[in-house]
Amino acid sequence: MAGTDRHKDKPAASRRTVLRAALAAGGAAALGRSALADAGNPANQPPNVPDWTRNLGDGVAVRAYGKPSKHEAHVIRRDVEWLTASRESSVSFTPLHELDGVITPNGLGFERHHSGIAEIDPADYRLIIHGLVDKPLIFTLDDLKRFPRVNRIHFCECAANSGMEWRGAQLNGCQYTHGMVHCVMYTGVTLKTLLDEAGLKPKAKWLLLEGGDAAAMTRSLPLQKALDDALIAYRMNGEMLYPEHGYPARVVLPGWEANMWVKWLRRIEVGDQPWHHREETSKYTDLLENGIARRFTFVMDAKSVITNPSPQAPLRHKSGFTILSGIAWSGRGKISRVDVSLDGGRNWRPARIDGPAWDKALTRFYYEFDWDGRELLLQSRAIDETGYVQPTKNELRKLRGVNSVYHNNGVQTWHVHKNGEVENVEVS
Amino acid sequence: MAGTDRHKDKPAASRRTVLRAALAAGGAAALGRSALADAGNPANQPPNVPDWTRNLGDGVAVRAYGKPSKHEAHVIRRDVEWLTASRESSVSFTPLHELDGVITPNGLGFERHHSGIAEIDPADYRLIIHGLVDKPLIFTLDDLKRFPRVNRIHFCECAANSGMEWRGAQLNGCQYTHGMVHCVMYTGVTLKTLLDEAGLKPKAKWLLLEGGDAAAMTRSLPLQKALDDALIAYRMNGEMLYPEHGYPARVVLPGWEANMWVKWLRRIEVGDQPWHHREETSKYTDLLENGIARRFTFVMDAKSVITNPSPQAPLRHKSGFTILSGIAWSGRGKISRVDVSLDGGRNWRPARIDGPAWDKALTRFYYEFDWDGRELLLQSRAIDETGYVQPTKNELRKLRGVNSVYHNNGVQTWHVHKNGEVENVEVS
Repeated sequence: MAGTDRHKDKPAASRRTVLRAALAAGGAAALGRSALADAGNPANQPPNVPDWTRNLGDGVAVRAYGKPSKHEAHVIRRDVEWLTASRESSVSFTPLHELDGVITPNGLGFERHHSGIAEIDPADYRLIIHGLVDKPLIFTLDDLKRFPRVNRIHFCECAANSGMEWRGAQLNGCQYTHGMVHCVMYTGVTLKTLLDEAGLKPKAKWLLLEGGDAAAMTRSLPLQKALDDALIAYRMNGEMLYPEHGYPARVVLPGWEANMWVKWLRRIEVGDQPWHHREETSKYTDLLENGIARRFTFVMDAKSVITNPSPQAPLRHKSGFTILSGIAWSGRGKISRVDVSLDGGRNWRPARIDGPAWDKALTRFYYEFDWDGRELLLQSRAIDETGYVQPTKNELRKLRGVNSVYHNNGVQTWHVHKNGEVENVEVS
Repeated sequence: MAGTDRHKDKPAASRRTVLRAALAAGGAAALGRSALADAGNPANQPPNVPDWTRNLGDGVAVRAYGKPSKHEAHVIRRDVEWLTASRESSVSFTPLHELDGVITPNGLGFERHHSGIAEIDPADYRLIIHGLVDKPLIFTLDDLKRFPRVNRIHFCECAANSGMEWRGAQLNGCQYTHGMVHCVMYTGVTLKTLLDEAGLKPKAKWLLLEGGDAAAMTRSLPLQKALDDALIAYRMNGEMLYPEHGYPARVVLPGWEANMWVKWLRRIEVGDQPWHHREETSKYTDLLENGIARRFTFVMDAKSVITNPSPQAPLRHKSGFTILSGIAWSGRGKISRVDVSLDGGRNWRPARIDGPAWDKALTRFYYEFDWDGRELLLQSRAIDETGYVQPTKNELRKLRGVNSVYHNNGVQTWHVHKNGEVENVEVS
């Protein structure tokens, strides 16, 4: 993260290789059209001075809240119509292949709603804490904001992320296979602070978290997690949560599945056992081959995906210096290493982790190499600080079968064709 | 940053004090109106179940690129009409009092334009490097994206931030006094990588950076900074730069004044001395009392401001548990400590730094105390890792007089009245 030169680790390909590829890709042709040719002589206004240099642009008054360039209109969350077509069960995916770094802009973080987006008036917002407490409490939003607050950067991943891939490669794009994850800085009050305020009775062991949307989403949370590191967050990346992310307040459970990060949070009940509600029985459980379902599988295990190239972002050059880029994360701590394979998992090489590798946060990796123009089978695997190594999909299937849609953290394979097109495939 | 309990540092006021204040502020009244009273019995649909629980919300299709709640419409960049009213010289300010944490959302980062916002078509974008190089080069945007890239979080502060305050307290709100600063994660290629590609001739000592907007902004940059940690960035917080921040590419000079972070970058000339253009002679120099101007004052010294409470964000309670919040930053490295005073600088106490304190990035601090309801003179002062202590405004004036508008990093004072209103004042 520090401002030191990171180019001590030289990539395998030389920089001259980069240049040759760049010039071949259009740099030479650019010379004639460039606005720069006449940069020293602007009074002439020759025909190749572009409009944006000739004319005054908009002032600030029209940009009170900024938005991306019109040329980036394709960088949006997308849904899959046949997957969840209704407001009762809608989902949109983060455009991972159009992003870099590890902070997700608020407008592009994936959504998953069980009754659409609750549009809450903050003046009427209330949060109740009751059950096995000394004193039941109701908080307004202003009340929540008056407690000591903390700022933490964490990934948020839906348990069903990559869920369609259990039965084989299906969705053609990392936005769809892995796009139910994002990473922002949250600001809020620790749940422990609020529970201390209410006072826990000795028998308290579990909490019920309930949303205020029409689904009234409920999940049971072990008390220990609530006391360890849970937040009631009202801000992401500095500003108030967007409506689709739970405005004005949601639960943040670092490293745990996003279904439990109840949005539009209105009620916390303290009890002595889990509630066994719908979202922890018929849903968000992992049905094994033997008919037994794994339950309360809260933690999101270490995972990674190469975001570029990928099916939505093919290679556009024929060969030469090439950058693989991707993200890795673990619900059990920091990412300590990411390996990359170009041949479907036969040979692995360490990727370069760039920038911060925070606890339970997205981590950015790159792998730079000289592409000889042949077909590639790209894979990445994450290793976290506990020593856990991201498994292959087949290793996971041996243990869990293919009935589930949840907790698929298997290694993803992209088939890069000679023409640069990329396809979602499986390797045996 | 790690997910450990941060509440080992207990605030001076007890949590019960918080609660009493919260209940007095409206919590008790909330009981009757709460949507939660009937949470266990939704079939009844009593009158106090709010619309957002009764009705399905919007699905995802209408939110391909999200935006804040309509209830947050006041959280916007604002300008000061008399300050820079024209497109030739427009400025908008980050709403610091409406943010928390240290990441600024892309839509809210301050703007400063010298000919409005250049709307550049990325397909026609070119960057030239020429002058004292072995081989002049032209890069397309795709070329830039094909170089090894890095991700770094840094503040960006206009040299004129707080400039109106040299002659005394003037603008009533931290958005206006300190809002020409923001902090994001940038992604780009190091300038060193591009210069290595072009090959520097032995006499190379300075660079000229030139923008492609109608102002064709130019600044001279010492070569050493270019090689140390300068970036050509094309992304902020993961997505492509917004137009007002230099889409598709700008310079990032960690810790240095933002005027040099040339936006819409189109040309880099390598020379052996500075160019002495307008923005480094008549502007962005500090005219002293003796008529001599300090020049090339690149580094932004350590600075801080209390963002809450502040004139735009008064206290709404009469007394009791109170949180001061603010930001600190230094162009020379990390913030090592922030002190807070409640009495205009007579007594100082260390603030709690929360979350990351990154190199040359915004750092968030809090100070929690029991307010007795009396008037306060709030101040904060930043200390960076070099040991530099943020000076008072009068200390600065003794050295530099009051002719300049640049590089005012003096301690800010907010006068909190008994009714909670806050005013920008000076203390002698």
